[in-house]
Amino acid sequence: MNPQYLLFDVGGTDIKAAFSDAAGTLHGIRRIRTQRVASDPAHTLVEQLKTLGAELMAEFPESNPIAVGLLVCGIVDEANGTGVFSANLGWRDAPLRQLVADAFDLPVGFGHDVLGAGVAELRFGAGKELGTAVDNAAVLIIGTGIAAALFVDGRPLSAGGYAGELGHGAVPGGLSCPCGAHGCLETIGSAGAIAKRYEQETGVHVAGAREVLNAREAGDKIAVRIWDEAIAALTFSIAQLCCSIAPQVVIIGGGLAQAGEALLQPLREALGEKLTYQRLPQIVAAQLGQDAGLRGAHLKAVAAGAQST
Amino acid sequence: MNPQYLLFDVGGTDIKAAFSDAAGTLHGIRRIRTQRVASDPAHTLVEQLKTLGAELMAEFPESNPIAVGLLVCGIVDEANGTGVFSANLGWRDAPLRQLVADAFDLPVGFGHDVLGAGVAELRFGAGKELGTAVDNAAVLIIGTGIAAALFVDGRPLSAGGYAGELGHGAVPGGLSCPCGAHGCLETIGSAGAIAKRYEQETGVHVAGAREVLNAREAGDKIAVRIWDEAIAALTFSIAQLCCSIAPQVVIIGGGLAQAGEALLQPLREALGEKLTYQRLPQIVAAQLGQDAGLRGAHLKAVAAGAQST
Repeated sequence: MNPQYLLFDVGGTDIKAAFSDAAGTLHGIRRIRTQRVASDPAHTLVEQLKTLGAELMAEFPESNPIAVGLLVCGIVDEANGTGVFSANLGWRDAPLRQLVADAFDLPVGFGHDVLGAGVAELRFGAGKELGTAVDNAAVLIIGTGIAAALFVDGRPLSAGGYAGELGHGAVPGGLSCPCGAHGCLETIGSAGAIAKRYEQETGVHVAGAREVLNAREAGDKIAVRIWDEAIAALTFSIAQLCCSIAPQVVIIGGGLAQAGEALLQPLREALGEKLTYQRLPQIVAAQLGQDAGLRGAHLKAVAAGAQST
Repeated sequence: MNPQYLLFDVGGTDIKAAFSDAAGTLHGIRRIRTQRVASDPAHTLVEQLKTLGAELMAEFPESNPIAVGLLVCGIVDEANGTGVFSANLGWRDAPLRQLVADAFDLPVGFGHDVLGAGVAELRFGAGKELGTAVDNAAVLIIGTGIAAALFVDGRPLSAGGYAGELGHGAVPGGLSCPCGAHGCLETIGSAGAIAKRYEQETGVHVAGAREVLNAREAGDKIAVRIWDEAIAALTFSIAQLCCSIAPQVVIIGGGLAQAGEALLQPLREALGEKLTYQRLPQIVAAQLGQDAGLRGAHLKAVAAGAQST
């Protein structure tokens, strides 16, 4: 094992880091909470990455990395290497690629966390299992919030970093959202919303959407309704996608995807009923789990390493 | 004037034909009703095109065309040169590019009518007036129905011919649609729907949405409500696009666009209220009018002519 690439996947909640080798295998995966320092969020992040990098170098003293792969959350301008905006972490137009390149004195492959994870999912995960080339796809990550990686005519869609914000598209029955709008998909369709709504209606604390699914399967009527409303909201938004970018496959990842067929089968049925002449996409589960971001960061690092030689 | 390209724009209602010269100027524009012969729709179309071609050759006897540009409605597979499906005209998997190439013994540039018109609108029409390069855009054609040409990261989006079917995405308040679904945008947001709904509610015959707008401006409460509901439905669908493909500009064409600022200004205001952190697109009127399809066919013909030499 010769670790060649230093990888970071920066989310609003935590940062994952690892080395990867030329084959893409991950080594020394670790995770820390993302620090939020409103006064200087970009440098705070870089300091956390330097600490993680030093830990990895200590664990693998023989390593001699040739490039960094860095994925971050928020609105990301991949071409310019900037974090345009992160509601969670607070930066605006932060030159993250350059800051990290300076910190490690290495070329940096830079991108958006959900889009990078989606590329990995298509290449190494659920997309690989499909067995056929997929030019048009959506990878929908359903966790606390909802975001998507969109693939159109064979390419990941960036639109300056603004593409794939499906969680903040309105759906019938949607509620008031912290983003300031009303009706956003993630106010009823996300794992976070399912748990929160159940708690609000029943007064019963649940650890997550999984417990609401358990309650549903035990016949709890409130759980049945909240789960059904989430399915309907997700179906609505996926059907909108089928009318605009027409994916051949929708890959469902994130925490809610752990529900498996209890989520996917109702989604398939509802979508089949809702669409008429449109192309009906396959709906499948993501395969890479929480490593998808690091696998995507690996692809970015490989590209940056190849460019610099 | 030396006509070099023979152009056809085949819609569900009529076929437009013209010659164009190297500069893209149209000559001898003519229009006939599209014939519908269920038993052999593709050959019926080719016979109509041959008649139109012969008429144009008779009008411009000095012409010696080097390529054909052909745009058709429905689901179109540009790569394979087939009309996959047309609800209006009845073909399925018809090899239209080859049939027309054989009929004229010329190379044929082939594409989708709305997408081809959208390319022309971006290049020669509203897109040109913007003055800056636009990589992400939607051209929304609002007439009897609603369809869109989508442009993502600098390229027209095809998705195998299934992209841009915005008229059949569901919106809150949408009605039963001839496509078999419920809630489709074009059941309340199209020019056709505005006229039809007003007639149904008032018993007054109107020639089109323009008369409903006139009634609205005269204070007719039913006209006010129907127009407002159309604006709300269009805003909903455009906002969905802003969360998925994030266009920088939305160009509005088709019959309803003749309402001008009476349509565009309320759309801008409603969209500005609906979106929060998303990229707010410019909303502008299309410029090419009914020639947009022929201008797009010209671009296809030029590309086919260049490939064949």
